[in-house]
Amino acid sequence: MNARPHVVIIGGGFGGLSAAQALKRAPVDVTLIDRRNFHLFQPLLYQIATGSLSPGEISAPLRGVLGKQKNARVLLGDVVDVNPETNSVLLADGAIIQYDYLIVAAGAQSSYYGHEEWRQWAPSLKSIEEATEIRHKILYAFEVAERISDPVARASWLTFVIVGAGATGVELAGAIGEIARQTLRNDFRSIHPEEAQIILMDGSPRVLMPFPEELSRKATKSLERLGVQVRTGVMVKGIDRQGVTIAQDSTELRLDARTVIWAGGVAAPPLGRALAKSAAAETDKSGRIKVGPDLTLPRFPNIYVIGDLSICLDGSGKPLPGVAQVAMQGGAYAAKSILRRIETGEEPPPFKYFDKGSLAVIGRAAAVANAFGVKLSGLPAWFVWAFIHLMYIVEFRNRVLVFIQWAFQSLTFNRGARLITGTTTTDFNFNKEIAAQRTQPGAEITQPAGAAH
Amino acid sequence: MNARPHVVIIGGGFGGLSAAQALKRAPVDVTLIDRRNFHLFQPLLYQIATGSLSPGEISAPLRGVLGKQKNARVLLGDVVDVNPETNSVLLADGAIIQYDYLIVAAGAQSSYYGHEEWRQWAPSLKSIEEATEIRHKILYAFEVAERISDPVARASWLTFVIVGAGATGVELAGAIGEIARQTLRNDFRSIHPEEAQIILMDGSPRVLMPFPEELSRKATKSLERLGVQVRTGVMVKGIDRQGVTIAQDSTELRLDARTVIWAGGVAAPPLGRALAKSAAAETDKSGRIKVGPDLTLPRFPNIYVIGDLSICLDGSGKPLPGVAQVAMQGGAYAAKSILRRIETGEEPPPFKYFDKGSLAVIGRAAAVANAFGVKLSGLPAWFVWAFIHLMYIVEFRNRVLVFIQWAFQSLTFNRGARLITGTTTTDFNFNKEIAAQRTQPGAEITQPAGAAH
Repeated sequence: MNARPHVVIIGGGFGGLSAAQALKRAPVDVTLIDRRNFHLFQPLLYQIATGSLSPGEISAPLRGVLGKQKNARVLLGDVVDVNPETNSVLLADGAIIQYDYLIVAAGAQSSYYGHEEWRQWAPSLKSIEEATEIRHKILYAFEVAERISDPVARASWLTFVIVGAGATGVELAGAIGEIARQTLRNDFRSIHPEEAQIILMDGSPRVLMPFPEELSRKATKSLERLGVQVRTGVMVKGIDRQGVTIAQDSTELRLDARTVIWAGGVAAPPLGRALAKSAAAETDKSGRIKVGPDLTLPRFPNIYVIGDLSICLDGSGKPLPGVAQVAMQGGAYAAKSILRRIETGEEPPPFKYFDKGSLAVIGRAAAVANAFGVKLSGLPAWFVWAFIHLMYIVEFRNRVLVFIQWAFQSLTFNRGARLITGTTTTDFNFNKEIAAQRTQPGAEITQPAGAAH
Repeated sequence: MNARPHVVIIGGGFGGLSAAQALKRAPVDVTLIDRRNFHLFQPLLYQIATGSLSPGEISAPLRGVLGKQKNARVLLGDVVDVNPETNSVLLADGAIIQYDYLIVAAGAQSSYYGHEEWRQWAPSLKSIEEATEIRHKILYAFEVAERISDPVARASWLTFVIVGAGATGVELAGAIGEIARQTLRNDFRSIHPEEAQIILMDGSPRVLMPFPEELSRKATKSLERLGVQVRTGVMVKGIDRQGVTIAQDSTELRLDARTVIWAGGVAAPPLGRALAKSAAAETDKSGRIKVGPDLTLPRFPNIYVIGDLSICLDGSGKPLPGVAQVAMQGGAYAAKSILRRIETGEEPPPFKYFDKGSLAVIGRAAAVANAFGVKLSGLPAWFVWAFIHLMYIVEFRNRVLVFIQWAFQSLTFNRGARLITGTTTTDFNFNKEIAAQRTQPGAEITQPAGAAH
């Protein structure tokens, strides 16, 4: 029999992986359970969506990362519930796994604030599949515009709306701005990609709310230089195949846009809700679970909840943000705390988040950074951003690959992964879209290549 | 009006792209039509299927490649028919495009020899999507095996059958051998991936039929060293969810294998059949179109058919093989030939294929090469293979990325793109597969990580 305590970790994101690795030399058996077989470097997911990077370059197979850690095993499985009374988790395939300590790092999913029907028209950026779909939508939009001649229809294909002006929304909008103004500049013969309208909207009074106002202003300026229109104080009322209905200053407005991307809110995944119920844990309105100062559940001190799924208050009573740093530090803390309890029986000191600052990038050479009270913007902030992101990418190989992709992109404006693959969740069909726009059947399009530009 | 001759090229593969680029300085307008927005380096597609490379690393966006060629335009569209009488091609979206010269380089698709029902159980390796699906199948097979305990079921998940022992089949089998013996060696706790059975089968008496017998023997030896069983003289009688039925020496045999990959035959795509019909052209039984010594159709001297879709005889009356070299040289020839006819009105000399040799790779450090009468095998052949493939990859950036991926893989046995993404065309569901194998409901799987190895 197995005498060593069994630590089960749910989720192989930043939090779960940090916890597993921090237990490397601990006298415990570790089982890391994830639905996917890879760790995903989420902060760069928008670069897959905008054709800069390929999925493999920001993913690390969990078995590869933990393969040589002898006390760890990786289990591909979908945890659907936790039973805190019997110390066990239940997988979707019916398996039951016993734990002595449980670390729940199941992350967050995107939330459409009760409007799930918007999801099909406005994908969000949470998985490789969604990122590939967004890439598909953006690139096809330019292709359809190139093939049709009606100016109104063409304009709606060349309008891109990004809902939500947090870091993800700002980064996406900046990247689409670059695609239109730089990457595709020579690529088309009928359209001018730089005429694309890119609209970044948010209900808040400014972009990047968690940043100091000064940096929000600078980010807005950088975005506008890339042709992005920033609209704040805007509420989304509806999203459909043809565009977005918004309300601003109590007037309703319609935006015709064939590409809408959701960078709105997040909510707890189904497992979070199941856990909250079975452990009678308190949650906030997005379903995040309230944990104590040692990151455990009040009633079950052997269950840690870390990262985006948890809500943990800092010294001043403000909840910690849902960023990689909080998850990673939480994972390392949980590991150390378990080790201490096993070895000394003592209760660990409370979790203290060490805030290294926040960052957001806008295009190829601008960013805003707020670190240790120092505010940076422009190129210096971009270098800080690039360095920190490269540093935290799991696997040395991926660091080298991403560095090379960025180096080429900086020199040539070209994006290395501009391919349209897979399908979308919507019923988009390129041939049908073109056929529908044709005014006469079989009209010729023998436009000479040399004449257009 | 457009006074310059309009050259329409169908297909952005090796043949079509070579033709377009060879017309760079010609006094013509070029329209390259492709269903996809990227050129795919097909010879390395098996490395996507086996997790070595990411799709973006062997794809080059056609607009990027031809963006600065002022006389060229790229059209995203699906050509469904050609009307040689009116000099026009018809797209699926209803557009009609007039040409003065037409170069048809539409390639080939996989053929299941009249058994289309096998396709869903045995994907072939023709597109990025199929390659990703094969990767999905291979990696999931190990994951299911890790989770189930019945030895018979487990063996069938750890059996991989590759049908067809041409270059693609040999390369796939070698790569799966490496995955099982090297890449995954430390990755699992319940199974030993090196116990996987990898079976490469073909109806021919030996692998790599187009190569000299000596090299076929060496390739077989290299494959066996990687644990691949080579079965020649085998006919496939059926493929289903559970495995393959084969006939060998007039006895029928059943192989339980949950992963079957088709590297069998090729056939002309639908456009090839449409063209053959409308131009009353002769075809062979796989639908390839017979062209004259100048690569044009006998009745329509302004229509060139090049690459895999065409069948062109060499000096000795043997058809040229369906490889990238033939397509590239055919494309360059067609371009030069059109230019000559425009500029001098003369008929061009017949196409002469310059055979640089053939290559096939088996795993990380072995290959066979037959070039200029010199037969190479083992590591020297591998270096030739790697050098030539790197040289022909479109876009310098991708050359660098692939080189780095290979360098890391050589040093660490690790594969950079081992992620399971997307879905399969079959109704595979991981959770259901595991649940179906479970003997008691909710059996525990609290196997300690340290105990297994």
